[in-house]
Amino acid sequence: MNSDRCAACKYLRRRCPSDCIFSPYFPSNDPQRFACVHKIYGASNVGKMLQQLPTHQRVQAANSLFYEAQCRIQDPVYGCVGIISLLHQQIHIAQNQLAKTQAEIAVLSTSHAPDSQFQPNLAATRPL
Amino acid sequence: MNSDRCAACKYLRRRCPSDCIFSPYFPSNDPQRFACVHKIYGASNVGKMLQQLPTHQRVQAANSLFYEAQCRIQDPVYGCVGIISLLHQQIHIAQNQLAKTQAEIAVLSTSHAPDSQFQPNLAATRPL
Repeated sequence: MNSDRCAACKYLRRRCPSDCIFSPYFPSNDPQRFACVHKIYGASNVGKMLQQLPTHQRVQAANSLFYEAQCRIQDPVYGCVGIISLLHQQIHIAQNQLAKTQAEIAVLSTSHAPDSQFQPNLAATRPL
Repeated sequence: MNSDRCAACKYLRRRCPSDCIFSPYFPSNDPQRFACVHKIYGASNVGKMLQQLPTHQRVQAANSLFYEAQCRIQDPVYGCVGIISLLHQQIHIAQNQLAKTQAEIAVLSTSHAPDSQFQPNLAATRPL
């Protein structure tokens, strides 16, 4: 047994080569991280996806694959598309609040226009 | 050749069984849809993920898997986690705009308090 094997090679019960594609992104002290991406994508697909990227981008790719795999395990129907829907709803709510608030400013500005020195900065509050 | 094979069975060059797990979600007229999820997850993983769900949830699962696979093909580093980051930024911008607008309302309300009949509805504009 080679105790220096990465989490992927331990999981796959194989020798961990010195140029292992998984080793830098799936350390042996976090076996759950590899188990998670393996369950959703399969080790071979994860390896292929990492291999196709320049070395300096692989850590971000491994992180985003792990995030998506976790989301899919937690929500097998929507995965992280569920989070995207939720964020779209939040943006919609924020934009509605902003529109209401802008309308209130417009009413306030109009009702006080003759005696007001204050000009609200509407340019800074346009909808996204 | 069975011309009624679904996109998955056509791609995998196999007979399409009457109870095919892919057939309802990967019609033969959209071969790209299956090719996309197969590239990222592999047919076997997609089949397993659909099989584990009750029938009525499989269409949403197939759609969300297709969406995530498309995102991963377009952005091999961040996949749809890139979209999540972008939406978080948009929410942050919207919340900042809202806070600024609320501050302007507070200033307007204070400066006109003695002669104003207008009370802005601050409860409707609290941060998310």
